[in-house]
Amino acid sequence: MANTTLDASPHTSLTDRLVAARAASIVLATANAELKNRALEAISRAVATGAAEIVPANGLDLANGRENGLSTALQDRLTLSEPRLVALADAVLDIVGLVDPVGETVRGRILPNGIRIDQVRVPFGVVGVIYEARPNVTVDIAALALKSGNAVVLRGGSAAENTNRVLVGLIQDALASVGLPRECVQTIDEFGRAGAHELMQARGLVDVLIPRGSASLINTVVAESKVPVIETGAGVVHVFLDESADEAWSVDIVQNAKVQRPSVCNALETLLVHRGAAARLLPPVLARLRADGVVIHGDDETRAFFPDAVAATEEDWQTEYMSLDLAVKVVADIDEAMEHIRRYSTHHTESIITNNLGNAERFLNEVDSAAVMVNASTRFTDGGEFGFGAEVGISTQKLHARGPMGLPELTSTKWLVRGSGQIR
Amino acid sequence: MANTTLDASPHTSLTDRLVAARAASIVLATANAELKNRALEAISRAVATGAAEIVPANGLDLANGRENGLSTALQDRLTLSEPRLVALADAVLDIVGLVDPVGETVRGRILPNGIRIDQVRVPFGVVGVIYEARPNVTVDIAALALKSGNAVVLRGGSAAENTNRVLVGLIQDALASVGLPRECVQTIDEFGRAGAHELMQARGLVDVLIPRGSASLINTVVAESKVPVIETGAGVVHVFLDESADEAWSVDIVQNAKVQRPSVCNALETLLVHRGAAARLLPPVLARLRADGVVIHGDDETRAFFPDAVAATEEDWQTEYMSLDLAVKVVADIDEAMEHIRRYSTHHTESIITNNLGNAERFLNEVDSAAVMVNASTRFTDGGEFGFGAEVGISTQKLHARGPMGLPELTSTKWLVRGSGQIR
Repeated sequence: MANTTLDASPHTSLTDRLVAARAASIVLATANAELKNRALEAISRAVATGAAEIVPANGLDLANGRENGLSTALQDRLTLSEPRLVALADAVLDIVGLVDPVGETVRGRILPNGIRIDQVRVPFGVVGVIYEARPNVTVDIAALALKSGNAVVLRGGSAAENTNRVLVGLIQDALASVGLPRECVQTIDEFGRAGAHELMQARGLVDVLIPRGSASLINTVVAESKVPVIETGAGVVHVFLDESADEAWSVDIVQNAKVQRPSVCNALETLLVHRGAAARLLPPVLARLRADGVVIHGDDETRAFFPDAVAATEEDWQTEYMSLDLAVKVVADIDEAMEHIRRYSTHHTESIITNNLGNAERFLNEVDSAAVMVNASTRFTDGGEFGFGAEVGISTQKLHARGPMGLPELTSTKWLVRGSGQIR
Repeated sequence: MANTTLDASPHTSLTDRLVAARAASIVLATANAELKNRALEAISRAVATGAAEIVPANGLDLANGRENGLSTALQDRLTLSEPRLVALADAVLDIVGLVDPVGETVRGRILPNGIRIDQVRVPFGVVGVIYEARPNVTVDIAALALKSGNAVVLRGGSAAENTNRVLVGLIQDALASVGLPRECVQTIDEFGRAGAHELMQARGLVDVLIPRGSASLINTVVAESKVPVIETGAGVVHVFLDESADEAWSVDIVQNAKVQRPSVCNALETLLVHRGAAARLLPPVLARLRADGVVIHGDDETRAFFPDAVAATEEDWQTEYMSLDLAVKVVADIDEAMEHIRRYSTHHTESIITNNLGNAERFLNEVDSAAVMVNASTRFTDGGEFGFGAEVGISTQKLHARGPMGLPELTSTKWLVRGSGQIR
């Protein structure tokens, strides 16, 4: 079904867009923080005061969405009301306050021959972002890319196409108002699926591609892209209650990790419990979860303590529910717990609750995840909580960035080498 | 033509090998430096004293190579004589002396809620390496991977298959002698091209893939691999002689950058000269190069000073000669020089020779290459010269590592989070 669009902008080719992004990135790479911050302030003002343009476009997308059977939850994510615009504008202002990562010296020394070498942070250049119908991401990621000196090419979900076009237009006007190229921020939504595919093939024109959204979106990008990808992934997150786990900590941490915000990637999905502590810990832990409406999918031993539980199947151990469901399994010891984690974890976050120092250190050393915790809620794997000020996403890959990504993770480095005639 | 092989090892599937590599990597990830160093010492001894096994296998590969028309240069690279084995064994001992990167704290802090977070270096896990018929790489990369706690799966050139099988066998015996799994180092050469292809698809089993060799090998891996790749790339390397360049520095640096070792990636390929300095600098610089037998491919202005020069074509600006050839072009100023570099550079290394501080800083800031130099020979872009002790390769990509890669670049990180019951 063809969606209604606000206007048809004059078509340039997608390659033209990418070439323009490269040219803009060269200007942006040497823009100082003061200029970039003025651009961010202008963007923030434009979003805060742009309701008259943004809300009708968003209304069109919402109408199309309802016509196309978009779920209520997705309609909510798509909605940009005036209060939400104000919040979005404030988030952009927060980025003004962050330290510019560009130019930071990572390490440096003087070589024996007198040459000085310094490794300094530089922008990637052109960053591509492929995401779903959440127009707040459009503003958010444009602001983070701008602050880190990167031109950005956005491919949002088609369900937000009208909203995104208006937002990108406002952002481009704001860029121009401070003398930066409009092409620092571009959308390629009007090129549709073919455009997303072309973006993934544009090695040499695009320096890095960041998919944000569902596991299936991320897997598609990872499989198809010839441009290097930073994978922000799914979380089949585990908590292991060791034999010596404190009861109050166990109850609080499991409840917090599962219930506080079940739809996010750092929420708990599988609880493992030491057999020697099951009788002591499972009743209070599960009672608290039941009070919050959590559906337990338990193995046989768990169901002995909690007969209401759904019988867990192999599929449960592999599932990122993102809902008030929890898989629960009783294990013999820390070895079986870590073996289960090795097999089913997506290497996002795992936490052990224990008072055994040796087990705490083993868990920290041997579990291979982006964040490995002792006696803390898995909900802390978060750029804001880690003090980064803003979060680009949580990387579950091992190359370049792992765990919460802040502004420095949107940069590369180069070596500056200063000599006085040295040769080998 | 079927090559002669020394023996047919009992075939396991390639997936079995990769699963075994994963299991070995789990053991290796928590091995301390003492144990890894004992393994390196055992490998060094095995290589130093293994001539009786290695040289005949190498002789078989050389005989196959001659029969298949392998060039003299490639035959030389393939040859492992007894003195070369001793040098190779010494190189492994040098790695014993390097600091173990695993466990290094990159950064850490205490959050306002009292949680301590530390980002520490951890091995990637399983590293795949695809390379050409240089059996020294087999020993070199196995030692670097081992020291950084990674299991490694090697796919060498088929022309070195017999040599590599013997080398890997000796390395595996050395690993077993100190109690480490033999599968820490494996070859998949006997699976041929299909094996290389399968390795590139093994996302989830292999954490990172490093191609080493010709541009065509690297481009194939980059295009086909679903496993994240660290690209160690070609170098179309530039030197720009600015108007104020010192004559002696210009002569020495250009000669050193082009002539000292023309076949490597940090050797000079294109010389750019400021028009205002061409009459002063080109005659002495080119006279020195001519004395070393360098063939000049010049633009019209260059040929006015040096009529012997071959007329340069568009192709010359794009060529990594890796030989005693040099492209030379006269430019109007630093802007034209940087524009040329932007267009033709492979972003490896560029150097400006100048006494103009403003131009030096502009060049450092605006040129987008892994190493950007002032008044120094491009030959310094090298792990050994940078003080890394060993070099895994020189990355020309922007993700994860850029420029010379040492042991830390063979690691990822994870966050250790230590709490005392904190929830959000």
